[in-house]
Amino acid sequence: MRKYYFLLLISFISFFANAQNADSLFIKKLSDEIMVNGKAYDNLRQLCKQIGNRLSGSPQMYKAEAWGVQTLEKSGADKVWKQQCKVPHWVRGGKDQLWTPVFVSANNPKMLDGRLENKYLDVLAIGNSEGTGNKVLTGEVVLVNSFDELENKKEQVKDKIVFFNYHFNETFVRTFAAYRDAVKYRASGASSAAKYGAKAVIVRSMSHATDNFPHTGGMRYDTAYSKIPAMAIGLGDADWLAERTTKGKIQVSMKSNAHFLPDTLAHNIIGELKGSVYPDQYITIGGHLDSWDVGEGAHDDGAGIVQTIDVMRALKALGYQPRYTIRFVLFANEENGLRGGTKYFEEAKAKNEKHLFALESDAGGFTPRGIGIDASDEVMAKIKSWAPLLKPYGCDNLEKGGGGADIGQLKNVGAVLSSLSPDSQRYFDIHHARSDVFEAVNKRELHLGAVNMAALIYLVDKYGL
Amino acid sequence: MRKYYFLLLISFISFFANAQNADSLFIKKLSDEIMVNGKAYDNLRQLCKQIGNRLSGSPQMYKAEAWGVQTLEKSGADKVWKQQCKVPHWVRGGKDQLWTPVFVSANNPKMLDGRLENKYLDVLAIGNSEGTGNKVLTGEVVLVNSFDELENKKEQVKDKIVFFNYHFNETFVRTFAAYRDAVKYRASGASSAAKYGAKAVIVRSMSHATDNFPHTGGMRYDTAYSKIPAMAIGLGDADWLAERTTKGKIQVSMKSNAHFLPDTLAHNIIGELKGSVYPDQYITIGGHLDSWDVGEGAHDDGAGIVQTIDVMRALKALGYQPRYTIRFVLFANEENGLRGGTKYFEEAKAKNEKHLFALESDAGGFTPRGIGIDASDEVMAKIKSWAPLLKPYGCDNLEKGGGGADIGQLKNVGAVLSSLSPDSQRYFDIHHARSDVFEAVNKRELHLGAVNMAALIYLVDKYGL
Repeated sequence: MRKYYFLLLISFISFFANAQNADSLFIKKLSDEIMVNGKAYDNLRQLCKQIGNRLSGSPQMYKAEAWGVQTLEKSGADKVWKQQCKVPHWVRGGKDQLWTPVFVSANNPKMLDGRLENKYLDVLAIGNSEGTGNKVLTGEVVLVNSFDELENKKEQVKDKIVFFNYHFNETFVRTFAAYRDAVKYRASGASSAAKYGAKAVIVRSMSHATDNFPHTGGMRYDTAYSKIPAMAIGLGDADWLAERTTKGKIQVSMKSNAHFLPDTLAHNIIGELKGSVYPDQYITIGGHLDSWDVGEGAHDDGAGIVQTIDVMRALKALGYQPRYTIRFVLFANEENGLRGGTKYFEEAKAKNEKHLFALESDAGGFTPRGIGIDASDEVMAKIKSWAPLLKPYGCDNLEKGGGGADIGQLKNVGAVLSSLSPDSQRYFDIHHARSDVFEAVNKRELHLGAVNMAALIYLVDKYGL
Repeated sequence: MRKYYFLLLISFISFFANAQNADSLFIKKLSDEIMVNGKAYDNLRQLCKQIGNRLSGSPQMYKAEAWGVQTLEKSGADKVWKQQCKVPHWVRGGKDQLWTPVFVSANNPKMLDGRLENKYLDVLAIGNSEGTGNKVLTGEVVLVNSFDELENKKEQVKDKIVFFNYHFNETFVRTFAAYRDAVKYRASGASSAAKYGAKAVIVRSMSHATDNFPHTGGMRYDTAYSKIPAMAIGLGDADWLAERTTKGKIQVSMKSNAHFLPDTLAHNIIGELKGSVYPDQYITIGGHLDSWDVGEGAHDDGAGIVQTIDVMRALKALGYQPRYTIRFVLFANEENGLRGGTKYFEEAKAKNEKHLFALESDAGGFTPRGIGIDASDEVMAKIKSWAPLLKPYGCDNLEKGGGGADIGQLKNVGAVLSSLSPDSQRYFDIHHARSDVFEAVNKRELHLGAVNMAALIYLVDKYGL
């Protein structure tokens, strides 16, 4: 009997060892396929250089949708379709401006020959904000470093322009923690200041970049208060303006034509590989096709889009037959509405679809370091047992806590949620800024992210959850 | 008795828990100090932009030494000194050129109006090579993809120019493995071809960059054969040239004035913090101050230099009193002679110094991922027990196998060797190329490397090995 158990044990061990070995070999093949023949980088060049940034409602977004259909088809999808949704249509409407007169001396050290000149600061209207109606709005600046300071100065801000100079906290090693800490000033600074009668706000960008690019992003008005203009300002100019307020009163003028047009149409672009065993159960992998209207949306989230497509291409190239149906989704409207993710979930729910797993890549095309997972302890343990298979490709950290804006609601139709966690040090240098361009993406880092995504999808598909 | 053991156990556990907690708090302080007040990035800007690249013997190297003394002093060293050594003095002597006539058609599709024009390929003489004496050398190209292929073609290469087109292997996830695999063509390709009578070599650059910059680096002649010229060629041009050889015979011309001048003087620049308990036992931390003569030596190894200096600055800023004497060493002549590291070792040996530990940063200023360690299993286990303290700062992987060219010989005076392992995906894009400039370095990644170095040095100093 003892011998029997022993043999059983040995056969179990050898079964698992062989399984891990077969998995390890297949994942190496996926890696080689993507690192050598991967198309993510070339596809990203097309998306960034031939189309460019692509906010919901913009002509480029429609061009990007057509590109998405074509690229998914070319990359081997069994089926590609467009899932329609209504999206907000915010437009910048021209160049945002903010300036203040400064005294300039030509060459006389006593500045007797000085004169006033307008100094233009580098700003971007914050996404979803109402501009100044393209008229000049002038007011005195009141600097506050935090919401607490706004409370203390609430009597002083009426008819003034509040400058939120909250600094991105550099001590957070993981920069998304700094973003979570600071983003409230962009998201709700305007209404917080409008509550006390301010007529506009300027917000220090959510970044620790060494350049001066302003970073836009989403905001929301509290309908209880006036919808005042809101401008993001670059870090160098924010420091200059903060310093300037210490020397006495300062007036600035601003101009922005930002406004909403009526809602318009957009589409999730979906490619599918049909499951051979569980065709009616779904694994979703995706990123978002839209971007803010500056730069090229290269890291945010062109990277996630081209990685998603290359995972499919690589699985097909190796002749892999998925057991579950895998959907490769280029979501619409993540940046200012989340209508794409919502539509995808609503249709899944209406059709009573069973969703097993969802993976989003929306944290930049940087070198991969881990996977964040939102799952029960039991499922978590199963996924963690795959860590040795992912470690050679950089995703050492399989950590609790993950998911993405677009896939978040799929939890309600049963999906375990997950997200690729690339190294975060460079992300907020370029996030929502003119510097988020193709050149900021490294080919190997981008492709290595796709390798880890492909490996995880393969393991989930093969073993279930 | 049982109770006694139990209490002893509890007190042990609480001792270690408290120690780890105190360490964790101190390391967080080091991190905050470096991430917020760190000077590494600003120092690197000075080194790259005010001095530039700095090959042994170049005027910039002497300027860099003076900068090193000043920066170490300013950063709080108890003592700074220069340790003299003789170094090779190789000079490029002008612009390296390689060209071939190509048929160019202005606008006639039948090319009846065509003419020959010289196409210049982007090349750099390989470091330590002898040029063409600044004369034009012309010859037919024989392409070989490997040393094996050279053996097969050995009868065909006499008086020809051998083009080693060995590709950097993209399937190695850790790019240093690809470098180790390919570098032999740069290091000994010339003599291997000279052995069969070739009159020059062209070597495909050791890189998987998406640009066309050639990558130089060290080589050595086997004195049994003729010292023929050796040129590194960019990847785009290498592909073009390889393709061209498939269409028939091709002649190229080259010109280089590369040559050696007599050996000259250089110095290791050493800053010291005196140990309070073991003043005569040493911990060494360093990088190399010299660089190749193209680009700005930003990642290789300006990064290691400024990180080393900032570790000292941060320890001083927090008032840390080291128990061992810690030396912060800016080594001379790593790139083409290793004379600085050799001198440092020889003096340590001559003085019978006891060296506990050495850490080198010479793999780029990219986001840190681990520490490589060359130590006994026992010491390895001790260092690995610190992994939870380093993990929050990114150095998850404490792995066997480490050290650096400059510190390698210190093993012979007792030192455990170690090296910072940054993420390697981008390194060979810029290594020894014109693209290794300040702008390729990210401030937070650079500083985070220094954080992990400081944490490790603190732990070694506090607990010994």
